[in-house]
Amino acid sequence: MSQFTADLMIEARWILPMTQPGRLLENHSLAVKNGRIVDLLPRDAAKNRYGQTLTIQRPNHLLMPGLVNAHARAGMSMFRGLPDISPDLERHFVNAEFVRDAVLLSIAEMLQAGITCFCDGYIFPNETANAAAEQGIRACVGLPVADVETPWARSAGECISKALNVRDEYKGHPAVTTVFAPHASHTLSDETLVQVRTLADELDSGLTMPLHQTELELQYSVARFGMKPIARLDGLGLLTPALNAVHMARITDEEMELVQRSGISVTLCPLSNLKRGHGAVPVARWARCGSTVSLGTDSAASYGLQDLWGEARMAALLSRAAPDAPPALPPWNALAMATRGGAAALGLADQVGTLESGKWADICCVDLDHPAMLPMCDPAAQLIFCGGRDRISDVWVSGRHLLSEFRLTRLDWPEVSNRAQAQAARLRC
Amino acid sequence: MSQFTADLMIEARWILPMTQPGRLLENHSLAVKNGRIVDLLPRDAAKNRYGQTLTIQRPNHLLMPGLVNAHARAGMSMFRGLPDISPDLERHFVNAEFVRDAVLLSIAEMLQAGITCFCDGYIFPNETANAAAEQGIRACVGLPVADVETPWARSAGECISKALNVRDEYKGHPAVTTVFAPHASHTLSDETLVQVRTLADELDSGLTMPLHQTELELQYSVARFGMKPIARLDGLGLLTPALNAVHMARITDEEMELVQRSGISVTLCPLSNLKRGHGAVPVARWARCGSTVSLGTDSAASYGLQDLWGEARMAALLSRAAPDAPPALPPWNALAMATRGGAAALGLADQVGTLESGKWADICCVDLDHPAMLPMCDPAAQLIFCGGRDRISDVWVSGRHLLSEFRLTRLDWPEVSNRAQAQAARLRC
Repeated sequence: MSQFTADLMIEARWILPMTQPGRLLENHSLAVKNGRIVDLLPRDAAKNRYGQTLTIQRPNHLLMPGLVNAHARAGMSMFRGLPDISPDLERHFVNAEFVRDAVLLSIAEMLQAGITCFCDGYIFPNETANAAAEQGIRACVGLPVADVETPWARSAGECISKALNVRDEYKGHPAVTTVFAPHASHTLSDETLVQVRTLADELDSGLTMPLHQTELELQYSVARFGMKPIARLDGLGLLTPALNAVHMARITDEEMELVQRSGISVTLCPLSNLKRGHGAVPVARWARCGSTVSLGTDSAASYGLQDLWGEARMAALLSRAAPDAPPALPPWNALAMATRGGAAALGLADQVGTLESGKWADICCVDLDHPAMLPMCDPAAQLIFCGGRDRISDVWVSGRHLLSEFRLTRLDWPEVSNRAQAQAARLRC
Repeated sequence: MSQFTADLMIEARWILPMTQPGRLLENHSLAVKNGRIVDLLPRDAAKNRYGQTLTIQRPNHLLMPGLVNAHARAGMSMFRGLPDISPDLERHFVNAEFVRDAVLLSIAEMLQAGITCFCDGYIFPNETANAAAEQGIRACVGLPVADVETPWARSAGECISKALNVRDEYKGHPAVTTVFAPHASHTLSDETLVQVRTLADELDSGLTMPLHQTELELQYSVARFGMKPIARLDGLGLLTPALNAVHMARITDEEMELVQRSGISVTLCPLSNLKRGHGAVPVARWARCGSTVSLGTDSAASYGLQDLWGEARMAALLSRAAPDAPPALPPWNALAMATRGGAAALGLADQVGTLESGKWADICCVDLDHPAMLPMCDPAAQLIFCGGRDRISDVWVSGRHLLSEFRLTRLDWPEVSNRAQAQAARLRC
């Protein structure tokens, strides 16, 4: 009997492992065992080695790492389409059940878009963690810390205490991790920021927060604290590799150098910034600066979608400055931002983000049998510019088949959809 | 027996007729007879009036006018993904069969994206017209005129003679019309441009051509003709309402005023311009100038897709200049550019572009049963920002059901796909 055993084989026309630019495997198979990738080899060799294993054939398809959405607010999807989200609205409507229903709606949307892992930041993070764990999607759940009262906690102190409970509950979970998610630099006191930093240091935890998103934020910070947020965080000791800074849309070259030196990672949300009238994020400069750069969808209330394909496409387009210059962000690099870049930003670089032996089998399968994908000449470029959520036929997370031939297998869509519509009716009555 | 008869009823949750901003019909039905819309009325009234008619129910769907792609080059889809399209490549590979296969591939892509009408401009326009007529999609076929030899014609004179043949063949056709499509202002002599203009005047025909797309085009025109293309066309008498000018990306306020006064219509291709490194088209200025503005996908070789949803979304995003200012192009207006704007640009404003009695039943049906479309709060905004080609379940052109529940009914996709792959293999050998 063969010494090689696996739980599952996936045969595909193409595999884009995202391990190095240009690497593309044709007619290969991927072997999964105990939720992890254990082999990637030519189809015929795979048949010899793993002949008895359950095999899923995807003959017109491309396998790539599942996308990593490095900034979501899954609990806000019920606000989609509303012109403005006021604190009043949140106070009146947001509770544990509301967040749970919204997170399930977001998980449905993300899985169908090929997202296998998301980093979140919203109140009731316990609901987000529970829903993710139950549905089998990977999540890095942000534990929110705010100085003002929310429907979840009355003070920064209560946020931290509840945050630690969630953290403890998910310690050692194979798919759900946590990070601290301070609300925003300009809305938090020095004291709170230092408290969160100290805690993160002690617990060896990451931090994620929006930074340098809007002109108003910068002005407010200068007026209240006498300096821009990045300088303030530097002074408070928060600029360390543990920090993932989201947005980073308004930034000078000197600030970018500081970011690069300090080793913080960056998450860009190009569509959200454009939609909200904040203009184009400086993708080309970020692509060249050497920091770990990833992409996020922001909340459904900000842009409207949780579709990382759109963000990656927008990033690639915004990086094209001149007809004769090579783009600052070539298609493969845009895909890298949406996969391995996100994994690195969430501290999961050794776990997910590429397809290689030893990593979790978090896989996205793209069906190329579509008029917009033919002829197939340059897969990375055509995935970015011609692909999209609608081409994702299958998704595996830790080897579990959560989307199969365009159908959610585990999530109960009729139920989730009905609950979303009931919540929406309540919200808009 | 009822005096009201129809061939087909379509019942939908929502109908967005695009006749005026904000108008949205809930639980209405649309009646079709002899390929035209004959009634739009509440569902119950429809049951009384047209009870015996074949009825198609779309309970979670929205009906809207089919999209009008005001600038395509359907015959170029085989070049998708290639880094550069040289005249040599065209000389070696493009022939009637190549164009036919490429046009069929484009038609499949466009129908699946909800496009019911396209304006084209490429060599072998007879093949484009034949394929459109055979497949039942509406087309305004551009008859190309070039001063240089192409695989289709050796000279401008031969172009015009062949163009007139195609024009005559399709005279009076219910779905296929023709316009002249001069290659580009800077590549054509004064003599040829005047000849085409005179012909268009005599035959009461439209004209479509790219204009003010690139910096290089403007520089070339100034160097060769001593003025920019718009000024030159003005001098040659081409700036009339018969002209549809495509791209119009680099334009001064004075030139925009001249465009507005002269009544020419404009087609923007925001994604194509960004992808090719030409920057953002001035959507906000065009949205405010009062001209008829429409959208086009350009060729699959330029951007990669023939998806007008992406173009409309990009136009809407680019028009958002500041967080507190209302967008210059609100979502409804972006949808208008993609539907009625295109119809007006092609001289079909009284035939298609809105859903109202008397017009052709060119209809696009959007399936809203998807996590990205829930909750549904503001249909126009959510169609633009959260919708897309993948939500198009059905398409009717002249009342013919060409896409039904996501499946092409008339076009033979396996055959078209096989031929596309065979052409691609030939191209890339």
